[in-house]
Amino acid sequence: MRRLLLSGIAGIALLLGASARAAEDDDLQKAAAQAFKPIPAMVPSVQGNPVTREKIDLGRMLFFDPRISASGILSCNSCHNLAMGGGDNVETSIGHGWQRGGRNSPTVLNSVFNAAQFWDGRAADLRSQATGPIQASVEMAATPAHVMSVLGSIPEYQQRFATAFPGEQAPLSFDNLAKAIEAFEATLITPHSRFDQYLEGNKAILTAQEKQGLKLFMETGCVACHNGINLGGQDYFPFGVVEKPGADILPPGDRGRFQVTRTASDEYVFRAVPLRNVALTAPYFHTGKVWDLEQAVSIMGVSQLGKELNKEEVAAITAFLRTLTGEQPRVELPVLPASTATTPHPEPLAGLPVAAPKPAPAAATATPAAPRQKR
Amino acid sequence: MRRLLLSGIAGIALLLGASARAAEDDDLQKAAAQAFKPIPAMVPSVQGNPVTREKIDLGRMLFFDPRISASGILSCNSCHNLAMGGGDNVETSIGHGWQRGGRNSPTVLNSVFNAAQFWDGRAADLRSQATGPIQASVEMAATPAHVMSVLGSIPEYQQRFATAFPGEQAPLSFDNLAKAIEAFEATLITPHSRFDQYLEGNKAILTAQEKQGLKLFMETGCVACHNGINLGGQDYFPFGVVEKPGADILPPGDRGRFQVTRTASDEYVFRAVPLRNVALTAPYFHTGKVWDLEQAVSIMGVSQLGKELNKEEVAAITAFLRTLTGEQPRVELPVLPASTATTPHPEPLAGLPVAAPKPAPAAATATPAAPRQKR
Repeated sequence: MRRLLLSGIAGIALLLGASARAAEDDDLQKAAAQAFKPIPAMVPSVQGNPVTREKIDLGRMLFFDPRISASGILSCNSCHNLAMGGGDNVETSIGHGWQRGGRNSPTVLNSVFNAAQFWDGRAADLRSQATGPIQASVEMAATPAHVMSVLGSIPEYQQRFATAFPGEQAPLSFDNLAKAIEAFEATLITPHSRFDQYLEGNKAILTAQEKQGLKLFMETGCVACHNGINLGGQDYFPFGVVEKPGADILPPGDRGRFQVTRTASDEYVFRAVPLRNVALTAPYFHTGKVWDLEQAVSIMGVSQLGKELNKEEVAAITAFLRTLTGEQPRVELPVLPASTATTPHPEPLAGLPVAAPKPAPAAATATPAAPRQKR
Repeated sequence: MRRLLLSGIAGIALLLGASARAAEDDDLQKAAAQAFKPIPAMVPSVQGNPVTREKIDLGRMLFFDPRISASGILSCNSCHNLAMGGGDNVETSIGHGWQRGGRNSPTVLNSVFNAAQFWDGRAADLRSQATGPIQASVEMAATPAHVMSVLGSIPEYQQRFATAFPGEQAPLSFDNLAKAIEAFEATLITPHSRFDQYLEGNKAILTAQEKQGLKLFMETGCVACHNGINLGGQDYFPFGVVEKPGADILPPGDRGRFQVTRTASDEYVFRAVPLRNVALTAPYFHTGKVWDLEQAVSIMGVSQLGKELNKEEVAAITAFLRTLTGEQPRVELPVLPASTATTPHPEPLAGLPVAAPKPAPAAATATPAAPRQKR
């Protein structure tokens, strides 16, 4: 009898516990649905630049065409590699003449949802952004004039600009190149991540640890900067609100948004990093000095929140961040039209070391070629 | 009466002329079908390396993965760009540290049909060839050990090697990497060119000028070296049989196949260039010094045949060569698996010039970003 009673009480206790957990689960999901938005399955519209099939196709060609760089070998995809999460997975990018860029290459995936582009938000939109790296001396090092003479020398490009920008007096323009690239980039979205499915109501799709990480992400305050559809990319904040990280991660020479606004309060201010697909975009921070996502999480805890997250907390938050990896866009490599007799040649590469001829063992014809200097 | 007779004679003459031309047409097509072979529509088999779907998919990933280079930014596709005819369309390739390669990048398209690879044929097959640029100090500058530790650190690669090479003790190997790349490259064929359709019996598909060019190509002797399925790629010949071109086009420092065989008769001997898709693969010759296909044709006339081709002949042969452009392969960019905590980082790039921070006008947030040094 007593045993019955006891087991009955235990049963009730269990039920209460379960329902309490369920309620907690509901609250967490509701709170998350408030703070974040899922990536839409459809290509979003772009203000002032209707996204058409013709623009997307043209933009894809331009995104992959290295002839719009001074050297003829660098394209948008060189540093925003669509096979690798839309970045280049190196500390800072290598550009024209093997120069290093000053900051880590941000992913182009879902960038259409950012309020502004670049680490310091100096470009209002993707079409403004697109014109930067093409001209940057350490990136593609080209000029609009060069780009226009390359594209203007290729009939298929002339025709495609005309089709993509119908009724315009001069459809082949640097501005329209930027608009076409923006239209293509608007298609580079990654819906259906596990977190998106969670936001849409599938509470069972996240593990207990991932939910714990989400809870911590919201309660410790990460969400204050990393919210909305991209979990970031919407506003600007100082790197090191509470405690500045080391000079390797935050070098004094790069004062962030101050270099755009010249406003003292913008010193070392950067755009909150969008965290979509963050598991694919190592290394981290504008300097790309941190390769390990867990380390990046603890650094942010200290520098932004003044909180020493313990091992378990860091692991949970990182597990949550890994649920932000969405379906990667499937991109077919364009077939670029051939250059013509009037296409400008790549910048003369005189002065570069040219490989000296090297003897090869006769055996090389039968065995795998050993390291050598020539093709 | 007489008028009738005359018109009758004229009619007969016309008929005779027409049938004579038709007979000539038949002979030309028959002769061409003897000297050349069409590109098959199906992926060819590869000796000692059965081409499977698993190998093709893995090979495509490896072909596009820059993490197998020392810098982490160069892949096979960097110099064999499948968006641009399978080459890079620069004089000689830019590799690790912005060094220039010694020779122009040969197209990878239809390379499976070549008797040997590289300009000097030092690699017997594509799997031998694939191991060269990965290790060449001026190209990807990696080592097999580096490549293996990168791939071994990524579970999806381990699993894909196991699936692509079933039943092997150690499927993840540098040799199997080469075999997977070879299997993918075997799919990079360009069938259905207008010339292929002509070889298959559609005599009407070539214009009179193109047929004239084909006739000249065969009668002046180009066909002696440029024959078979790739119109080249089968045998070795001295560059400058009759008259050596200038040192800019044939620099004395590069003695061609001699560097492989150390045989005096192989001095300045190169593999006859395959002419498939030649209209897409400027600039020309191993030095990449000639951008204009017509100019390349006249140079070959003088250097190889001792014949000054006139303007009309050059134009006709060039028109014929343009019929060799086939259907370009449609390649979907792979989605590469993310690196892990144990994936080696790219070679430290210390010593490279890093872009200095540059002030940006505040206006830049609203207007297209001007040339600058940072992201």
